[in-house]
Amino acid sequence: MLKCLGIDPGLARVGYAVLLQEGHLLRPLGFGCIETRPKTPLPCRLNIIYDRLREQIERASPDFLSVEKLFFGRNTTTAESVWQARGVVLLLANQFGLPVLEPKPSQIKLAVCGSGTAPKEQVQRMVQRLLGLSEIPRPDDAADAIAAAVTGFSLFRRERKISLSQSGGSHAPLSLR
Amino acid sequence: MLKCLGIDPGLARVGYAVLLQEGHLLRPLGFGCIETRPKTPLPCRLNIIYDRLREQIERASPDFLSVEKLFFGRNTTTAESVWQARGVVLLLANQFGLPVLEPKPSQIKLAVCGSGTAPKEQVQRMVQRLLGLSEIPRPDDAADAIAAAVTGFSLFRRERKISLSQSGGSHAPLSLR
Repeated sequence: MLKCLGIDPGLARVGYAVLLQEGHLLRPLGFGCIETRPKTPLPCRLNIIYDRLREQIERASPDFLSVEKLFFGRNTTTAESVWQARGVVLLLANQFGLPVLEPKPSQIKLAVCGSGTAPKEQVQRMVQRLLGLSEIPRPDDAADAIAAAVTGFSLFRRERKISLSQSGGSHAPLSLR
Repeated sequence: MLKCLGIDPGLARVGYAVLLQEGHLLRPLGFGCIETRPKTPLPCRLNIIYDRLREQIERASPDFLSVEKLFFGRNTTTAESVWQARGVVLLLANQFGLPVLEPKPSQIKLAVCGSGTAPKEQVQRMVQRLLGLSEIPRPDDAADAIAAAVTGFSLFRRERKISLSQSGGSHAPLSLR
């Protein structure tokens, strides 16, 4: 059994999802979206994200985090605020001593749909199927966080395999970002 | 008397400076640079910055922070890491209930040298003069943090003046980012 907290980082909306992996089964323990208002000062918005995510970590006790690594074009204003919020998420993971995986969007699409260029809607439908949900999880940010968590499990196993083989098969401590 | 913690944000190097303003005099109470190693995992580097800056805030009890707002060209990799570190600084300020000012580089150059396009060396020489130091503060990151703090005082007074005049001169609580 392995528990992952998946995160779709942002400033106005942070998607989160806690998934439990038992054998080949994935079970959602909870998912949702933390929202902050544009009129709230930036440091306060970051603190709201920090406090709400800390609650999730304390409640769920995940084994690791999977935080989507976003890419931006020329929209630097959005990029700035999302990166600042992402820094808070990574800080929190380290304060709880939790390993962090940082899958790129293409890795998430590949892990969930089998294609690194799958459209967003396809990822969301696959997320619904993989978890056996009656409908596509809402809001989008929560569905994206679930996809990040799904990807996290495959990356986590791979990293652990590498870590074990490098140390000659002994139970070396897992070293992830 | 007013105390400002100036910050030159970064991931590998975070400059900090605590300045005390008594009337028209500025007195440095301490400055330096927090360093993190490139080989250390990102979440851990963010946590080192968080812990070391928290120590500075607890030791100095500043009235507010002045955190330089950086601009990047196309070097997005550097930008990403610096913004993530900056998010941690803003979070910390909010956790201590401290107002944060975010001067742009051009505002800092204008406040310190009288020209928004002054070269870096001129800013550093002026920082040395303003504080009556025998030499230019080292490292550069500490000098930049001092310049951010110097700018912070003038912005803080201006914001307070606006805040007071808007509330009809009564002692309204200061509302800054």
